[in-house]
Amino acid sequence: MNERLNRQIEFIREIDKLKTIYRQSYLMDKSRHENDAEHTWHITLMAWLLEEHLDQRKVNLLRVMKMLLVHDLVEIDAGDTFAYDEKGQEGKFEREMAAAKRIFGLLPVDQRDEMLALWLEFEQRETLESRYAAAMDRIQPLLHNYFTGGKAWQEHGVAADRVRARIVFLQEDLPDLYSLVQHLIDDAVKQGYLRP
Amino acid sequence: MNERLNRQIEFIREIDKLKTIYRQSYLMDKSRHENDAEHTWHITLMAWLLEEHLDQRKVNLLRVMKMLLVHDLVEIDAGDTFAYDEKGQEGKFEREMAAAKRIFGLLPVDQRDEMLALWLEFEQRETLESRYAAAMDRIQPLLHNYFTGGKAWQEHGVAADRVRARIVFLQEDLPDLYSLVQHLIDDAVKQGYLRP
Repeated sequence: MNERLNRQIEFIREIDKLKTIYRQSYLMDKSRHENDAEHTWHITLMAWLLEEHLDQRKVNLLRVMKMLLVHDLVEIDAGDTFAYDEKGQEGKFEREMAAAKRIFGLLPVDQRDEMLALWLEFEQRETLESRYAAAMDRIQPLLHNYFTGGKAWQEHGVAADRVRARIVFLQEDLPDLYSLVQHLIDDAVKQGYLRP
Repeated sequence: MNERLNRQIEFIREIDKLKTIYRQSYLMDKSRHENDAEHTWHITLMAWLLEEHLDQRKVNLLRVMKMLLVHDLVEIDAGDTFAYDEKGQEGKFEREMAAAKRIFGLLPVDQRDEMLALWLEFEQRETLESRYAAAMDRIQPLLHNYFTGGKAWQEHGVAADRVRARIVFLQEDLPDLYSLVQHLIDDAVKQGYLRP
């Protein structure tokens, strides 16, 4: 087996671990927490499905999908940090950067560099592609919370303003989705799913 | 909320069920069976990673990824049919077509038609994109079997010739991957993972 293919197979084998990294979100049927691999599939498909809601239609969808497919791989080493866990945010970027170097470092150099660059682009959220990808990553757990009666929100005592603060960046690029999400948050408060 | 977005959200909610459709394959750590959503994430990323091994390099990767993202959604209604279950193959296409109509039918008409066409293209395996997508769908469970010491193969008493028959179509488009897979099958027989 040639050396490039050997490295690619090792990477495919290693990233299987993403299926064992569990998040705070529950499946829509509330039966269990969802894991990062499932979450990633879901938001990659959402990025395709919801593209028409971008106010600027110039997004490179393939780039968005690639970014999403690898955005959580660092959690294989660094673990999932709950969005509303303030303590967990300390040193998070350093932990994740070390993870990115190890995991993408399994690949041939050109592929390592491509994935590392996409992961950094996602983290920095400066391009339209990365803002759109991040929007999917924020909207999906919000839908899961809303449609499970706020199960994870309630377990962690999350308040509406903290949820609102995390989606405010949608306003400019994705006005329709921003309105939808605002409506869901308001309704969640009304239904008692989310602390006012 | 506008009608299009409403349909898209219902679809996103419905397809969450893919995370509860379990396959015969085990995770690489053998801890449990994997589900269709995890499998789909894995092979969509593989399609990007292994593109260079295509002898004809004209594949449309975005199209391949879209095809893969939806290829197993029909199993929400039709269930997973084990590749080596001959009885399960009877009436499979009819069951899956009914599922495709219901599930994709939740979407706005243009998106329903796009996804239905991609699913059919995948099933018919006539284009380079669909053959490449199908190759990922075959190689991934083979890797999972190989790296778990043939756990699912052994549980079902699968013989090497049946595994070989399922990957013979790789030979033309993906000679490197075909050689790799042949080597893994031979070694699996030698190690006693797979019946000769």
